[in-house]
Amino acid sequence: MPSVPHPHGHAPAHDGVPSGGSHRTGNHSARSVEEHRTAVVELLAPLRAAGRTERVALRDALGRGLADEVTAPVSLPPFANSQMDGFAVNSAAMPDGGAELRVAAPVPAGAMPAPLEPGWAAPIMTGAMIPAGADAVVPVEKAVPDRFPDPETDSTVWLPSTASGTFVRSVGSDLAAGEQALATGTFLGPAQLGLLAGLGIDEVTVHKGLTVLLVTTGDEVVEPGQPLPAGKIYNSNGTLLESAMRQAGLTVVRTRIATDSPGELQALLASQASSVDLIVTTGGVSMGAYEVVRQVLEGQGADFVHVAMQPGGPQGIGTFEGVPFLGFPGNPVSCLVSFEMFLRPVLSELFGTPAHRTSVRARLAHGLTSPAHKHQVRRGSLHNDGTVRLEGGESSHLMHALAGSNALVHVPVGLSALVEGDEVEVWML
Amino acid sequence: MPSVPHPHGHAPAHDGVPSGGSHRTGNHSARSVEEHRTAVVELLAPLRAAGRTERVALRDALGRGLADEVTAPVSLPPFANSQMDGFAVNSAAMPDGGAELRVAAPVPAGAMPAPLEPGWAAPIMTGAMIPAGADAVVPVEKAVPDRFPDPETDSTVWLPSTASGTFVRSVGSDLAAGEQALATGTFLGPAQLGLLAGLGIDEVTVHKGLTVLLVTTGDEVVEPGQPLPAGKIYNSNGTLLESAMRQAGLTVVRTRIATDSPGELQALLASQASSVDLIVTTGGVSMGAYEVVRQVLEGQGADFVHVAMQPGGPQGIGTFEGVPFLGFPGNPVSCLVSFEMFLRPVLSELFGTPAHRTSVRARLAHGLTSPAHKHQVRRGSLHNDGTVRLEGGESSHLMHALAGSNALVHVPVGLSALVEGDEVEVWML
Repeated sequence: MPSVPHPHGHAPAHDGVPSGGSHRTGNHSARSVEEHRTAVVELLAPLRAAGRTERVALRDALGRGLADEVTAPVSLPPFANSQMDGFAVNSAAMPDGGAELRVAAPVPAGAMPAPLEPGWAAPIMTGAMIPAGADAVVPVEKAVPDRFPDPETDSTVWLPSTASGTFVRSVGSDLAAGEQALATGTFLGPAQLGLLAGLGIDEVTVHKGLTVLLVTTGDEVVEPGQPLPAGKIYNSNGTLLESAMRQAGLTVVRTRIATDSPGELQALLASQASSVDLIVTTGGVSMGAYEVVRQVLEGQGADFVHVAMQPGGPQGIGTFEGVPFLGFPGNPVSCLVSFEMFLRPVLSELFGTPAHRTSVRARLAHGLTSPAHKHQVRRGSLHNDGTVRLEGGESSHLMHALAGSNALVHVPVGLSALVEGDEVEVWML
Repeated sequence: MPSVPHPHGHAPAHDGVPSGGSHRTGNHSARSVEEHRTAVVELLAPLRAAGRTERVALRDALGRGLADEVTAPVSLPPFANSQMDGFAVNSAAMPDGGAELRVAAPVPAGAMPAPLEPGWAAPIMTGAMIPAGADAVVPVEKAVPDRFPDPETDSTVWLPSTASGTFVRSVGSDLAAGEQALATGTFLGPAQLGLLAGLGIDEVTVHKGLTVLLVTTGDEVVEPGQPLPAGKIYNSNGTLLESAMRQAGLTVVRTRIATDSPGELQALLASQASSVDLIVTTGGVSMGAYEVVRQVLEGQGADFVHVAMQPGGPQGIGTFEGVPFLGFPGNPVSCLVSFEMFLRPVLSELFGTPAHRTSVRARLAHGLTSPAHKHQVRRGSLHNDGTVRLEGGESSHLMHALAGSNALVHVPVGLSALVEGDEVEVWML
C-alpha cells in the first residue's frame, strides 16, 4: 500500500474496515530521519558479528567491504627509481656549469644496477632502480647529445648540474612499509584493489555478503509480462528495489507477489525467513485499511512508525522470527527513497559496501515548496554548471521522472520554500 | 613501461639501445584529448553493428545499455487513482459550504469500483481507482467524523467542498501510452528497470557485452603473492584496470605478465585475439627504450601517439589482426586516467553502459600548477562543502593517493596555475 501523508500528531483512532480486519493506527508523533536511521543501524549491527567475514582473492573482492585494516607489507615504491628516461648521476659531484661524464651500462626497469662510479653517468629508464652512488636523474632531452648512446661503444655525455633527488621517486614516497594502507570498512573499488596488488597482497578479509528476502505486497499488483486487469498496476517496486539492492552488493531472494491476505503473507515469510539475513517488504505499512504487512508483523517484533520525511513517511522496523525486518511503503518512489535514506547508507556504514553516495552542493534551477516539519527528498538532474533541476513533482508515483533523474535533492526540516539559486544538498545516484 | 613526459615537438632521433633493439620515436606533435577520444570512438563504433544486440529478461538487464528506444505500451498511471486514503466525490455536486453525503461501498486498491451515485461519497484507499462519476478525493482526516465508518452499517459523512482533480492521479500523468519511455542508449539502472516493469515490460533489447583482453607488460613486473626480487614491482595495473573494466560492464580476459620480449608478446596476442572484441595493454608505449608493445604493433595496424595530457600522454591505438587495440602507458595512475578519459566515456557513448560519470564544479581547496600545453588530470577528494582537495602530487605512481580519492580534477589546456577557491571540473569516480 502506498505512502499516506499523515497528519502530524493526531491520528484517527481504531477504525473498522470493510474486510472485517482491524485498521490500527499508532497515536505517536513522527520520528526524525536521523532517529530512524539510528534504529536501522541498531537493527543490523549484530550482522557485523565475528565470524561473518571471509578471506577472498583480490579478484573476488571487487565491490566488497574490508573487514580488517591493511598495513603495507612493503614500501611503495619499494626502491628509489627514476621518474624519467635519463641519466642517473651523483649530484654532489657535478660542477655548477655541468660536466662531461663517461656513460655507464644502461639500467632498464626491473634490473639491479651496478654502483655508479665517480665520473660516470648511467642511462636509466623510467621506473628503473637508481644505482648506488647516484641521487638524481637528468632527463635525456637535457643531455648533449640528447639521446642514449650505443651501449656497445665507449661514450661520454655532457649533463647540466642538478639538485639531489631530482626526478627520483624515493622509497616509500607513496606509502611506507608498516603504515596503514586501507582502513577497516573501506569499500574495495578498482583503486583500492590496485593499491593492494601493488603491495603484493593477493587476498583480503571482507564482510560476508547479506541475503535479503524481498516481498512485494498488494492485491492490486501484477507482474510485468502478464495482462493488466482493470484497476491493477504492474509491479514496479520489485524490479526497482531488487536492482538497487543488487547494485549495493546484496543477494536478493524475490518471492511471488503477496496478496492482502495476512495468513498468506505470514506463511510466505515463515517459509523463507530462516534462509535470509534481512526481510524487506513493500506496501502495507501505512495508516489506511488493508495494511497487510502491519497486520502480520505489528506487535510481533515490529513497530510501524511515521518518519518526518516526504515521501516514504510510513515505515515498519523490527524482526520476524528473529530476522531483521524493514517494511517500506508501496509507491515506487517512496520505496527507492526509503532504500536510499535508511538501508543503503547503513550498509555502507556497517559493512563498507556499497560505496557511500557522493554528496554535493548545487543551486536549484527553480523554486520549490516543502512541508516544513518534514525532510523532503526530491528527484532531480544535476547539470555540470552546478545547478539541479527537479524532475517530476512531489508525488511518489512518478517513475518516469525518477528514471530521468541522476540525483536526490534534500530539503531539510524547517524549510517550507526555496527559490531559484538557493543551495541544496544533492546525493548523486 | 611508464609514461615519459615528452618534449613537445622535438623528439630525439633513432637511438641504439642496450639489447640491440630499436628505440623508435615519432617526430609528431601531440594530439588533443578530444582528438584522441574521437579516434577511439571511430575504432570501437563498428562493434555497435547490427546483430550485436540481444533480448534479455529485465533481471539480466541491470547495468546494460538499451539498444532500442522503448515506447510506453500503457499509460502510467494506467487509470485515475486516489493519492490519499479518503472519500471519492463529485466535486461539481458539492455546495461551497460542504455537504453531508451517504457513504458508499469502500474502494480498495486493485478493485473495479461501482459508479458513484449522486449524493454519495465512496471511501477510497490510496492507489485505488476513482469511480465513474467521481473526480476528486477528500482526505479522511478532513471528514466529519475523520475516519472510515463500518461498511456493514448505513452511514453518512460530512465533507468540505473540493476542486475537481484534487488528490487524483490522472491517467498518464507520469507517462502516456505511446510516448517515449526510454531513449536508445539509456543505461539501465534500478530506476530505468523499475519504469519498464511498471509499464508491464519484462524483456528488453540491449547491446551485447564486450570482452577485452588485458595484458600487463614489463620485465620489472611480478604478480602479487609472489616474492619481490630487488628492482621489481608488483603488478598493480592488472588488478586496477581489470576491476575498473568489470565495473564498467566489460568481461575481462587476463593473461600472464608479458615480458619485454617482442616475440613473446606477439605470440601471446596472436593466441588470444580471435576470441575478444578489444585488446588493451599496459606499458611499452612511450619514447624510451624497451617499448615492447610499440615494437610489436607499430606499423602493423597501430599508431603510437602523444596526447597532450598529464599523466597518460603516450598512447597506442589501432588494431592487431583486425581486433581493436588500445595501448595504455605503464604507471598505474596513467592507466586509470587513460581508461577514464578514453575508454570508459566511449563505451558509455556507443553502448549505453557504463553510466556516464557525473561531472560537477568544485572549488579548489588549494592552488596547483599545470603544464599549460597539456590537459592535466589530478586526483582529489570532493567534500560536501563543495571544495575539492588534491590527493598526492602530479606524479603518476601514487597509488595510495589514488585509493584515497573519489574524483578526477580537470585542468584544461591553457592554464598553468590555479589558486585556492578557483572552480574546476570534477568527475566523480
